[in-house]
Amino acid sequence: MNSTRPEHKQRIVLASRPEETATAENFRMEEVDIPELQDGQVLVQSLYISVDPYMRGRMSAGKSYVAPYPVDGVILGGVIGRVMESASPALSSGDFVLGGYGWQTYEVVGAERLHKIDTSIAPITTHLGVLGLTGLTAFFGLLDIGKPKDGETVVISGAAGAVGTVVGQIANIKGARSVGIAGSTDKCEYLIKKLGFTAAINYKDADFEQQLKAACPNGVDVYFDNVGGTVSDTVMTLINQGARIPICGQIATYNSARSDIGPRVQRKLLVTSSLMQGFIIGNYASRFAEGTEALAKWVSAGKIKYQETIVEGFENTVPAFFQLFSGGNTGKLLVKVT
Amino acid sequence: MNSTRPEHKQRIVLASRPEETATAENFRMEEVDIPELQDGQVLVQSLYISVDPYMRGRMSAGKSYVAPYPVDGVILGGVIGRVMESASPALSSGDFVLGGYGWQTYEVVGAERLHKIDTSIAPITTHLGVLGLTGLTAFFGLLDIGKPKDGETVVISGAAGAVGTVVGQIANIKGARSVGIAGSTDKCEYLIKKLGFTAAINYKDADFEQQLKAACPNGVDVYFDNVGGTVSDTVMTLINQGARIPICGQIATYNSARSDIGPRVQRKLLVTSSLMQGFIIGNYASRFAEGTEALAKWVSAGKIKYQETIVEGFENTVPAFFQLFSGGNTGKLLVKVT
Repeated sequence: MNSTRPEHKQRIVLASRPEETATAENFRMEEVDIPELQDGQVLVQSLYISVDPYMRGRMSAGKSYVAPYPVDGVILGGVIGRVMESASPALSSGDFVLGGYGWQTYEVVGAERLHKIDTSIAPITTHLGVLGLTGLTAFFGLLDIGKPKDGETVVISGAAGAVGTVVGQIANIKGARSVGIAGSTDKCEYLIKKLGFTAAINYKDADFEQQLKAACPNGVDVYFDNVGGTVSDTVMTLINQGARIPICGQIATYNSARSDIGPRVQRKLLVTSSLMQGFIIGNYASRFAEGTEALAKWVSAGKIKYQETIVEGFENTVPAFFQLFSGGNTGKLLVKVT
Repeated sequence: MNSTRPEHKQRIVLASRPEETATAENFRMEEVDIPELQDGQVLVQSLYISVDPYMRGRMSAGKSYVAPYPVDGVILGGVIGRVMESASPALSSGDFVLGGYGWQTYEVVGAERLHKIDTSIAPITTHLGVLGLTGLTAFFGLLDIGKPKDGETVVISGAAGAVGTVVGQIANIKGARSVGIAGSTDKCEYLIKKLGFTAAINYKDADFEQQLKAACPNGVDVYFDNVGGTVSDTVMTLINQGARIPICGQIATYNSARSDIGPRVQRKLLVTSSLMQGFIIGNYASRFAEGTEALAKWVSAGKIKYQETIVEGFENTVPAFFQLFSGGNTGKLLVKVT
């Protein structure tokens, strides 16, 4: 690594809000000077940058999980970096840190806004994935809302994604049957053979509904929904009495400005006394330590396997982001800044 | 009252399942002999018979709250009656009882399937209404799922119905704002002036949506839904972060065999971290005593007022049932057998 202090950094900002489907024109790459450190600040060199589906929500002006990105503002999100210079007693040059400053090659940031990474548990990239917000989202959504019991059936949409892969494996740990829904035969094979899912089904298959029914002979007790749309309509026809449905994402609808029309779920929830609960991981901030500890233990014991798709080069961040919506990735998608 | 033992009783059975909208032809009145008592049984003369929206669900073969009525089977539901003959030590001639044997003028029934009524608290009819399953439905749905807090806004659809009137008043007791949705100006006036609702809105008004928005300037924290359909679609646009939505009924959809199509709620639940929970009162059977005690206290203190619409004559049971769907009643609808 080059330890000479750079003069400039690159960053990607929101150039304009998407009308409907987001495109590369909605982003702009900029080169700007790196300022001197103030007391308490550090200079971080970005190593890995996270691209996540929720970012699409923040590109629009409407209400989503969190505040929209301002136009001309940096695309904020998780980053793993290394401290290059420090004017803070809390961090030293060479420390690996987790930050939230987003799509930038370097950043000058207050040390209190960074989290020092323990590199002894697992590769540093896991702190953006299975040991980071991704894994915690799976952990709390499934266990706090879904509450799977031994022998129950847990269906996961977006099952080959970063969150979905972890959800299915935690379901298995809890003695439940894990049925994944994904978008290709390869992904389904990966879920079953590498991650131990009970079953996995390609929603693009013409007989998807029949396959799902066959994979859930006793119905569906928990539906962990990352996707929404017609896939969810189908799963909803199979829910059991007292089903629990954590709503984690609705990626099928993010790029549409139109109303999202389909069968209303209320009657089905009524006749089955079922629960549907939207959530974001921020709701569980006070319990992160509990989740990280459990996930680290399961990863160390080989009970949770993870996969990362790593795209090389900061200049490929925007194309990597669009891969999330075209179904190109399995597991956690990261950009290696290089 | 005639205390001579009758030889025959009348009962109303399901003649056929409705294709879509239920009609009088789906019912049949029968006259049958009253059998002799076996040990442990009593003969009950029906005084008041309950007609309820959920009965429409049980007329169809599909899954609903509980098992469908069999064709040629009696329409089961709540009844208040008086014991005429007893072959059980548990009940004496003259006792007032609550039973579940449905639309019949008399019934011979095991004493263990009847509940002796305490006539000292309130008129006996309240045991089919505010002190019965109706009041308990309001109590547990609102407090266990809706959990209204001081100063929050609770919106109730079907607000002038048996359950809705109680929900709004419990919301007031808990310090929340109660906003009712009903189907006529008279009902809205009744809710505000007699029951103390904060606001009430006629969903048939052309500017319903604007009125609802104006009545909920801080958004909607709890939506107690008895109705479903487009009324619910409108309320859903106003829910706040962390909203709770007990689904108690979907009366707008009961008479339709078609799919119930509208805006999907999942994305809204996601971006607001809100909860939607279907329930039936049977889920709370182990806690009925707690609910009845609280309701009786509030009724005695005048904090919960109730209204009954009483239709005279067993022969008018079926027309009374259809009133539920045309919006003809306010409060609890009962048939006085006479």
